[in-house]
Amino acid sequence: MRATVIHGAGDVRIENVPDAGIAEPTDAVIRVTRACICGSDLWPYQLMKPSDVGQRIGHEAIGVVEAIGRDVRTIKAGDFVIMPFAFSDGTCTFCHEHLYTSCVQGGFFGSGPVAGAQAEAVRVPFADGTLYALRAQVDDASMGSLLTLSDVMGTGHHAAVVAQVGPGKIAAVVGDGAVGLCGVIAAKRLGAERIILLGRHPDRIGLGRAFGATDIVSERGEAAVERVLELTGGFGAHSVLECVGHGESTNTAILITRPGGHVGRVGVPQERTMPSSQPAFFHNISIGGGPAPVRAYIDELLPDVLEGRIDPGRVFDRTTGIDGIPDGYRAMNERESIKVMVKP
Amino acid sequence: MRATVIHGAGDVRIENVPDAGIAEPTDAVIRVTRACICGSDLWPYQLMKPSDVGQRIGHEAIGVVEAIGRDVRTIKAGDFVIMPFAFSDGTCTFCHEHLYTSCVQGGFFGSGPVAGAQAEAVRVPFADGTLYALRAQVDDASMGSLLTLSDVMGTGHHAAVVAQVGPGKIAAVVGDGAVGLCGVIAAKRLGAERIILLGRHPDRIGLGRAFGATDIVSERGEAAVERVLELTGGFGAHSVLECVGHGESTNTAILITRPGGHVGRVGVPQERTMPSSQPAFFHNISIGGGPAPVRAYIDELLPDVLEGRIDPGRVFDRTTGIDGIPDGYRAMNERESIKVMVKP
Repeated sequence: MRATVIHGAGDVRIENVPDAGIAEPTDAVIRVTRACICGSDLWPYQLMKPSDVGQRIGHEAIGVVEAIGRDVRTIKAGDFVIMPFAFSDGTCTFCHEHLYTSCVQGGFFGSGPVAGAQAEAVRVPFADGTLYALRAQVDDASMGSLLTLSDVMGTGHHAAVVAQVGPGKIAAVVGDGAVGLCGVIAAKRLGAERIILLGRHPDRIGLGRAFGATDIVSERGEAAVERVLELTGGFGAHSVLECVGHGESTNTAILITRPGGHVGRVGVPQERTMPSSQPAFFHNISIGGGPAPVRAYIDELLPDVLEGRIDPGRVFDRTTGIDGIPDGYRAMNERESIKVMVKP
Repeated sequence: MRATVIHGAGDVRIENVPDAGIAEPTDAVIRVTRACICGSDLWPYQLMKPSDVGQRIGHEAIGVVEAIGRDVRTIKAGDFVIMPFAFSDGTCTFCHEHLYTSCVQGGFFGSGPVAGAQAEAVRVPFADGTLYALRAQVDDASMGSLLTLSDVMGTGHHAAVVAQVGPGKIAAVVGDGAVGLCGVIAAKRLGAERIILLGRHPDRIGLGRAFGATDIVSERGEAAVERVLELTGGFGAHSVLECVGHGESTNTAILITRPGGHVGRVGVPQERTMPSSQPAFFHNISIGGGPAPVRAYIDELLPDVLEGRIDPGRVFDRTTGIDGIPDGYRAMNERESIKVMVKP
């Protein structure tokens, strides 16, 4: 089958690889009907050292179950499924707490020996614990939004939940990428009174406004902090969604949080230390978040997608076949595209 | 009157200063019946650059109101009061949210122009918003515990609240100083199933056990992390109270927190950045806390003190008059004493 292999920074290739197959009795294989490229895929695209063997990449997909292992109980061949970006056994203490991304046997697609989803098919470990089967009839127009439940919409929602967005509160979203834009949807959905989006790309800002952002801050660094404080009576936002992962964006996130407020981090941190430990302390700001347990959020988000109340699929502004994936990376990396959908 | 003035590292003096008096119509003056030396007073004791004028120091006190300004409404001369370590106007948006330590007009005793409480008397700004009047009859044996409600017990409680200690959870307390020991009391009071105290001083550990610590970890750094993981099935503690403020202790706190768990910081951070941003992220650990709004906690903690269910006053292992304060600093700094009470 055809699959995406990254061999180093800027070096994404489509290769012929062995067909995905059942390796463990708890596995399933899904035929990928939609996958996509994630902002976090751009980290290796920018930084990965050259590798002869490469790494199979991609962690977001929806598709149809093609085969199941003999111990799979709830997932059946033919099921249409959402594949969360992390696999999880469904039985450990963390799965019981719905923190699927800390599953003791879990891991991430496109990491180590587990292949990625930017491919014609993908093996899914712990199919019962990982996959979410959709038994409803779904029209083609909803496919993009369903695909976002495998990562980006659930991740934006996680940031909003951790940041304790709620009615009457001011939310701020740092980052206008697809996750940040889904963070805007999530903040609106959870009742934020105002939503300040920090971003500077006209197409993204336009979509952010359509999703519910009430204010746009296009300054950076200290100027951005000053602007948000101006917009919030000098105090900052109650709930800040950090959707980038750089030291600077994290610093901005902390410095625009109102005393007693919460930062929800979902941008993968690129630095070992966190800035502004002292301002965070003196303002009693809580900083949480991490890899979103998106599987836990599908029950809550799915009806809003199916009934059209949210439309996170609008973050996809380009669709490609499998051969167009390398150019999709380039386009996202150059900010020419917000998020690229793949129809293998 | 006599008051404590710190002039630099290791240079604490008792001086004759002008009597405390009403400066603003919202002030009160209290005659200090008990004050004490705080672990955080040891930071300037170790690090302060020499100062000719010095800084009036001390932020914990109970006492009797001697005079009030003409706009003071709820506090009366003769009232026996607890003085939280931060003053607060009682009327701003943060005071309404009970985050008194972020009061827009507030500040800390012994900071800038506001004198400290290691003195015969102290001026209290915003008396109505700051002081907590006790109208119950109080016996002399309770004075130490009441004094802890001005800071150290409320601070330990804040750490436990932010760390979301609750029934069935494992708590860990990093630091065996007076705040850490009060954190043990708070964790037990909030129902923690196990309380792991990280500390190495036999007298403090003994008191920690008496307060409810179920396990003691005396290792440091990586060895401490390993030991806590061993004690917790490899996962760490749900709720970790950081009661020191060093980079190393903060790192330990994060690394012993169970995925999805919470760190409550109350040790004043001595470094600009926070360590282990990435482990905190990948384990979805939330890090919060800061200067405790102790005034908000008195209503909850006071009955337990008055009815003898908790006895945080046991952290005081030495009492001195005002002239003994400099030696009290020395004794605490050399870990000869846990916490020194002052009877001016």
